[in-house]
Amino acid sequence: MTIEELIARRDKLFGRGAPLFYKEPIHLERGEGVWLFDVDGRRYLDMYNNIPVVGHCNQRVVEAIAKQAATLNIHSRYLHTAILDYAERLLDLHSEQIDNIIFACTGTEANEIAMQMARLATGGQGFICTDATYHGNSTLVGSLTRAPRRGRQDIHAIPFPQMYRPIKDGLSGEQLADVYLDEVASAISDFAAEGVRFAGIILCPILANEGLPNIPPTFMARAAKMVRDAGGLVIIDEVQAGFCRTGNWWGYQLAGVEPDIVTMGKPMGNGLPLAACAARSDLIEKYRTESQYFNTFSSSPVHAAAGMAVLDEIDDRNLMVQVTQVGEYLLGELQKISQHTDQIGDVRGFGMFLGVEWVKDKASSEPDMGGAIDISNRLKDKGVLVSNDGVFLNVIKIRPPLVFDRSHADIFLTAFKETMADIGA
Amino acid sequence: MTIEELIARRDKLFGRGAPLFYKEPIHLERGEGVWLFDVDGRRYLDMYNNIPVVGHCNQRVVEAIAKQAATLNIHSRYLHTAILDYAERLLDLHSEQIDNIIFACTGTEANEIAMQMARLATGGQGFICTDATYHGNSTLVGSLTRAPRRGRQDIHAIPFPQMYRPIKDGLSGEQLADVYLDEVASAISDFAAEGVRFAGIILCPILANEGLPNIPPTFMARAAKMVRDAGGLVIIDEVQAGFCRTGNWWGYQLAGVEPDIVTMGKPMGNGLPLAACAARSDLIEKYRTESQYFNTFSSSPVHAAAGMAVLDEIDDRNLMVQVTQVGEYLLGELQKISQHTDQIGDVRGFGMFLGVEWVKDKASSEPDMGGAIDISNRLKDKGVLVSNDGVFLNVIKIRPPLVFDRSHADIFLTAFKETMADIGA
Repeated sequence: MTIEELIARRDKLFGRGAPLFYKEPIHLERGEGVWLFDVDGRRYLDMYNNIPVVGHCNQRVVEAIAKQAATLNIHSRYLHTAILDYAERLLDLHSEQIDNIIFACTGTEANEIAMQMARLATGGQGFICTDATYHGNSTLVGSLTRAPRRGRQDIHAIPFPQMYRPIKDGLSGEQLADVYLDEVASAISDFAAEGVRFAGIILCPILANEGLPNIPPTFMARAAKMVRDAGGLVIIDEVQAGFCRTGNWWGYQLAGVEPDIVTMGKPMGNGLPLAACAARSDLIEKYRTESQYFNTFSSSPVHAAAGMAVLDEIDDRNLMVQVTQVGEYLLGELQKISQHTDQIGDVRGFGMFLGVEWVKDKASSEPDMGGAIDISNRLKDKGVLVSNDGVFLNVIKIRPPLVFDRSHADIFLTAFKETMADIGA
Repeated sequence: MTIEELIARRDKLFGRGAPLFYKEPIHLERGEGVWLFDVDGRRYLDMYNNIPVVGHCNQRVVEAIAKQAATLNIHSRYLHTAILDYAERLLDLHSEQIDNIIFACTGTEANEIAMQMARLATGGQGFICTDATYHGNSTLVGSLTRAPRRGRQDIHAIPFPQMYRPIKDGLSGEQLADVYLDEVASAISDFAAEGVRFAGIILCPILANEGLPNIPPTFMARAAKMVRDAGGLVIIDEVQAGFCRTGNWWGYQLAGVEPDIVTMGKPMGNGLPLAACAARSDLIEKYRTESQYFNTFSSSPVHAAAGMAVLDEIDDRNLMVQVTQVGEYLLGELQKISQHTDQIGDVRGFGMFLGVEWVKDKASSEPDMGGAIDISNRLKDKGVLVSNDGVFLNVIKIRPPLVFDRSHADIFLTAFKETMADIGA
């Protein structure tokens, strides 16, 4: 079957509009470590996928899942110990105040729990988010996606804080933080003026979907204080930032902000649908009591086995250190390339999550979505998988499995440099 | 660790209020077919769990998951064929108009998609559900749980249709259907009066959470027509009723109603978080286009492998026939016991889903929740697992894995008769 026939078959079954990557999508057959192989045996260096954090088809995780699924796979209204061991180990990795946990299957579900929990605890309805975020696809969580600044009763978006295309030019980082904090203050006072009780703020600590901007220093910590002073709670969404992605266990450690509620997802089970919402025990207990929350598939022994194997792999392979070292190398090399490439407006990021801001030229810094998409397609043709993100879809997103090492970085850098040469950049 | 110590540890990590079964919960270690084993090696006949539909730790499903997870486990923005084969096979089992599908991870997610889809297609917001239903735990879907008759703008609940405690006494089935249909009509006209555009109705075709009542014949089909005549769509939630549970592939076949949108979940992956929303292609396409729905973990090759293995097992083991035969035997025997047991008000159900309505006495038919809970605990002590459900929690719910055979039924019947003798019923 040709790619075209496959797409036609897919449209017929899934409905047209189911998202696909690349001008000519790839038909995959096999994955291993940082590599994906298509049905013709062609291999691709995966620099996009953040779910298989300890590598595609990681043997330890697969064996843990298979062994447990062959032994016991059951919901949590019976007792079993493995999920308690896992909960304990995971909570130990968090700040001290984060001492209770509810497991779920997807990031959407975890963020639903978090928002419902904040509403119950505060008695409020109003949430602040950024204007270019994504936290999931349920009706409530999905209402955060590209939310308007005002216009909804319960959601007020603020312009996402950034240094590259700041809301005002010519300001220092500290001054910029002030300007963005004014937006938070104004959203809070608008809620008050509208008679909507404030529930809190929900933020990805590295603003991944916003395009991974450099955030004005002090913004996060000061925003959290402002929210708490107004009676709200701070929800930190670690679905993308968590599990050593940034070279820290959690994005909130990098961002210098303490969450009241923290959500986790994607990499947690290396591909098994596993997510969680952790929080202070008083918040969890109130939520449990009032909602009687139960999730059929979650908190199972299989959830525990997969989650535990992922933590074991991260620890035993010393991935946090590798992420920092390889990430710094990659960032440094990309910054070098950027110096003589006028279309690279900015290179930024942390650990194994980097963004290359593709622009018409450095002087105008005008976003060039078409150019960024062209780079992705060209890199794919050279056997390297990346994608585009950010509010203008012009940020080339580099986010490989964490087992990505320096030799892989060099393969990518060669392909990237060739691509720059091919387009005369 | 004692059970008490384990519960204390669980409360400390999960927060008090995380639901547990039984006065003395059981600590499980292993599952096999219809059997669960605790850490002391004690075995329990599982007559409750509807997820491991082809048996706990089914070897074929476990091997399919393990093999695929070791080969490729990736999201659906790349092409792979297994998920298309699975989609095709699953859609072939449905009515002809149900020809497109969106996979998700949980029933909650599938029902979120269904409700959002109905809203987009109709331009409406208003949904009808029953007053004792459960369709999931997100903010929108969770608002259907024990929804009030009126009082919310967007959700109107109707008294769930039933023959055992009908809304009016002394009526024939057809007359009762009329009375309940008046409730549907009144909900629809209330939406109109309130200026809320009507989106549709969402129903479990066997009203499982309502207590599996005998539904007045013709109600379902006529309610569906009434909803469509008013511009609404019919969402049928097969999360509990589907996959041969009733001796039919789908509950809507038993109920004699055609869905516009149908959701599936629990048994789909025999324990892997796998769910779906299937519908007419025009509805799916509109939804895909307007929502850009994407689910990180769903539509993966591992989803396909698990789902396909479940269908293979149901087919190869001829489970649909077994469900009907063993179910009829079990129902007949329970009805015999009921004749000389004054506390059994009603015995009903279909296939491998039966309910025993526990009451103070037949004459009053007063619900006896405490008695039903006591029976569950006593059966557990005899090595048989059931639970309670229904609006009064007085319906003993019998819902074993479908691989349950006549010899298992006899083990249960012996334990049940002993329990009746023990309590002098």
